[in-house]
Amino acid sequence: MSVVDEVTAANERYASGFAKGALPMPPGRKFAVVTCMDARLDPAKFLGLEEGDAHVIRNAGGLVNDETIRSLVISHHLLGTEDAVVVGHTDCGMLTFTNEELQEKLGPEAEGIDFEPFPDVAERVRQSVEAIRGNPLLPDSFGATGFVYDVHTGQIDPV
Amino acid sequence: MSVVDEVTAANERYASGFAKGALPMPPGRKFAVVTCMDARLDPAKFLGLEEGDAHVIRNAGGLVNDETIRSLVISHHLLGTEDAVVVGHTDCGMLTFTNEELQEKLGPEAEGIDFEPFPDVAERVRQSVEAIRGNPLLPDSFGATGFVYDVHTGQIDPV
Repeated sequence: MSVVDEVTAANERYASGFAKGALPMPPGRKFAVVTCMDARLDPAKFLGLEEGDAHVIRNAGGLVNDETIRSLVISHHLLGTEDAVVVGHTDCGMLTFTNEELQEKLGPEAEGIDFEPFPDVAERVRQSVEAIRGNPLLPDSFGATGFVYDVHTGQIDPV
Repeated sequence: MSVVDEVTAANERYASGFAKGALPMPPGRKFAVVTCMDARLDPAKFLGLEEGDAHVIRNAGGLVNDETIRSLVISHHLLGTEDAVVVGHTDCGMLTFTNEELQEKLGPEAEGIDFEPFPDVAERVRQSVEAIRGNPLLPDSFGATGFVYDVHTGQIDPV
């Protein structure tokens, strides 16, 4: 079975039991989550989110960079969120390579591209929290808190 | 109860029942999902993903831009995914504003920033699929398929 067939079949099961009605566009619990794309992480499950509760932004590393700020600006200014929860995790793939190694693997097309690896998850989460707190496009009242999720226990620890 | 208290309490319940053991870092089903941060979307539920199955990348609009490509390059070249599933959705917030309107609301700090709004969800999904297919950092063998999720029915429709 192809990926498309698999997800289509899974979606038919989901939609057949769908009873959410018309949820409003703004997140009901007024916060946004920023976390890693890692397959082992299901932020809805490990943070207790139902459909309609919170924005979820995910990328390789769970980084707050300019693109994350784009999403958070829209989240706050257009859709009313007031807090961000940033969640890195143990055993992150971003700790396993350097820019030079990945650029060499990819060849000339990748020259000069920053893939944003980092050596320390908790430190990177702290930087992301500071990047939110210090960003001039988000008000001082917009909260930001950081955690590290442990892929072996399912627990989040504040940083 | 604060956001931090709420997510911490929810996480304690999740971790107390955590029995995933040591899942491997590479996604077991070898694909990545790109979708919107919208609170009404739970891609794990509507695509049938368990922890460990697939990378999930989310941003405002579910766009494939340079930052999404950064994540997909890491997903494919370092962690072995072979397909991407791009999912836009009906009633997307990105259809409700223009750059000029948001820049004006935010003031001088936002001058020149592209917040990447778009007028047509299916068309934007098609562009994202093409951006993956045509990217020189991903091989021709890397698949990309697009869908639009209907927030009123829970169904995905291919585009």
